Amino acid sequence: MNKGRLEAFSDGVFAIAITLLVLELRVPDLKGTGDSALAAALLAQWPQYLVYAVSFAMIGIMWLNHHAIFQNIEKVSYALLMSNLLLLMAISFLPYPTLVLAHYGPTPITILFYGIVLTVIALAYRALFFAADPPPDVPAIIGYLTQWNPWTTVGLLSYLAAIALGWYNPLVSIGLFAAVAVFYALPSSITIALRRGRHGA
Amino acid sequence: MNKGRLEAFSDGVFAIAITLLVLELRVPDLKGTGDSALAAALLAQWPQYLVYAVSFAMIGIMWLNHHAIFQNIEKVSYALLMSNLLLLMAISFLPYPTLVLAHYGPTPITILFYGIVLTVIALAYRALFFAADPPPDVPAIIGYLTQWNPWTTVGLLSYLAAIALGWYNPLVSIGLFAAVAVFYALPSSITIALRRGRHGA
Amino acid sequence: MNKGRLEAFSDGVFAIAITLLVLELRVPDLKGTGDSALAAALLAQWPQYLVYAVSFAMIGIMWLNHHAIFQNIEKVSYALLMSNLLLLMAISFLPYPTLVLAHYGPTPITILFYGIVLTVIALAYRALFFAADPPPDVPAIIGYLTQWNPWTTVGLLSYLAAIALGWYNPLVSIGLFAAVAVFYALPSSITIALRRGRHGA
Amino acid sequence: MNKGRLEAFSDGVFAIAITLLVLELRVPDLKGTGDSALAAALLAQWPQYLVYAVSFAMIGIMWLNHHAIFQNIEKVSYALLMSNLLLLMAISFLPYPTLVLAHYGPTPITILFYGIVLTVIALAYRALFFAADPPPDVPAIIGYLTQWNPWTTVGLLSYLAAIALGWYNPLVSIGLFAAVAVFYALPSSITIALRRGRHGA
Repeated sequence: MNKGRLEAFSDGVFAIAITLLVLELRVPDLKGTGDSALAAALLAQWPQYLVYAVSFAMIGIMWLNHHAIFQNIEKVSYALLMSNLLLLMAISFLPYPTLVLAHYGPTPITILFYGIVLTVIALAYRALFFAADPPPDVPAIIGYLTQWNPWTTVGLLSYLAAIALGWYNPLVSIGLFAAVAVFYALPSSITIALRRGRHGA
Repeated sequence: MNKGRLEAFSDGVFAIAITLLVLELRVPDLKGTGDSALAAALLAQWPQYLVYAVSFAMIGIMWLNHHAIFQNIEKVSYALLMSNLLLLMAISFLPYPTLVLAHYGPTPITILFYGIVLTVIALAYRALFFAADPPPDVPAIIGYLTQWNPWTTVGLLSYLAAIALGWYNPLVSIGLFAAVAVFYALPSSITIALRRGRHGA
Repeated sequence: MNKGRLEAFSDGVFAIAITLLVLELRVPDLKGTGDSALAAALLAQWPQYLVYAVSFAMIGIMWLNHHAIFQNIEKVSYALLMSNLLLLMAISFLPYPTLVLAHYGPTPITILFYGIVLTVIALAYRALFFAADPPPDVPAIIGYLTQWNPWTTVGLLSYLAAIALGWYNPLVSIGLFAAVAVFYALPSSITIALRRGRHGA
Repeated sequence: MNKGRLEAFSDGVFAIAITLLVLELRVPDLKGTGDSALAAALLAQWPQYLVYAVSFAMIGIMWLNHHAIFQNIEKVSYALLMSNLLLLMAISFLPYPTLVLAHYGPTPITILFYGIVLTVIALAYRALFFAADPPPDVPAIIGYLTQWNPWTTVGLLSYLAAIALGWYNPLVSIGLFAAVAVFYALPSSITIALRRGRHGA
């Protein structure tokens, strides 16, 4: 199969997911009031601006890592196609728990919902790494479960910790989500993704 | 004509159709209630999550097969362009009967509506195969009607059977739709699509 | 400049414009009624299905011709970039007058609105042809106005005739719009677009 | 990293941002009135048509310059990826302040909002130029702040001036925004973008 077309399709899905949240912004409906009321109404929308920026950054970072992983993939296997579809499905869904989180603020439930989707994304990245470089002599399911992959494990464990911490202090969970996002945006982290794609290690 | 650009345009349409259903998810509007009410409201949306996942999977599988078919196409004929447009038109439309099915549950009418659109998709895939490798000595309409194409015929007959069964037991129809989707997602089925693109047999 | 990237961007805009109208379909909201009420409600939406199909076909045909024209373009000039932006702007806008036409049926005003947008599209195609192959010794504006271009002139004159006929019999205008669309979808017409791109004649 | 895929992803985001505003157009809802009421209702929507055209032109011009800058970029650095994400984030956001400006007309606040987003876009372009050709011996932040870049400085100073003028005469600000847009659309300006990409000067 053709890697170029798989990337092009993935890029299309990323591009749509990343711009989707602009559609959520609604012009405030003020009638017969002055300019300062408009200023107040626009400022009061700050959580939505933040959600837009955070969501854009999150999906942008995921795109960077996707890009890095695919850089060194040579053959497009069936497992890779399926892992990639699962990943895209979860990433396209991410704007929804982000909106729920923004609307209700950090609570155990909104953290749980957001964390579950991030966990699925981490599992799908793990599947993608596995599909890019499957160990030769074990059944796929064993290989997937036992692969040594610190890069996705960092995310996975952090997301589960953030979900658990959400029941005690949801703000700490938010901090943890942010720290993981920064981690994956670091050049060294992206280089690891790049290398794993190549050497599987 | 240029196959690369035809694929790029098709990928764009696939990418949009596959992400469209996220836009249907609405943040539940609860005022002055606690976290458990939110949990209940988010859980109550499960049919929409299912519709999102099913629709993503269906269109993803169609993309995989489209990808496989085009892998071996060498010349982009007028008939191929037209078959491809018809296919994209039907696939972009699919989210709508999926939503209707999710909203009203499986009934003879929702199964009929969903089944008709899948039937049109199967007929368009049949046209695509035909256009990729037309028999040389017969008029197009005869060739299209008589081509031996077990790959699309499986879908076509199953969809018609599902529509008919819908009047007796709509749940059986759902099972049949799911079975066909799994069939088209199998590596061996995708390989057939790949081979037909090449050898027309 | 790079023709490939200009085509990719154009394909993205085409892909979005062509799928946009699915978003207009709304699941009918029936409470406590039976399956036959749903069947009736779905059938009653036929004008929207027709609008979707017609709009998809129109933009699909425009994409085919865009594709044909670019096939033979060698250098991407500034005039070509600007003509292309104008063309994309008008094509992305087309779904709106289509919706107005579907909502209010064929009347002098809805025909006029739809016809104006088609006229702008024809003028932009004319500019695209001109930019692809400008006559060497005349000022651009004179060259644009005087170029001999039967391919876009057919559309241009038909659209103006359809607008005028709309005041007497809007249904005749609809027939004329349909005839022009069929004309541009014919292989021979697409071949002319292809040839003009190459030879400018 | 791969420049082609970065461009493809960027083109997807540009294509979505540029077509987004068509979704804002709503078919006027008139019941039982004649054709002249429809004509009046369609004409009364002129500010929305203008917003659509202006927004399309603005993002189209930004795409042209993005295209020109990337033409001569050879290696995709981490700084380039990040600058590009920031740029796309701001450009995708632009339709929102455009809608606010169209809804409330030019006032100090709507000019300020629109001007801030354009200023962020200019800073992101500046970062893109810097990332494409960083001075070798200075820390990044010093290099970014001190780079000699008349091309983006023209926009930057004009936007700040337009914001300030908005408190006295918002219409003058609109004129200034328009003048800057025309400047960036000029072939000579696009050539400068092209050259800076190559020589960094």
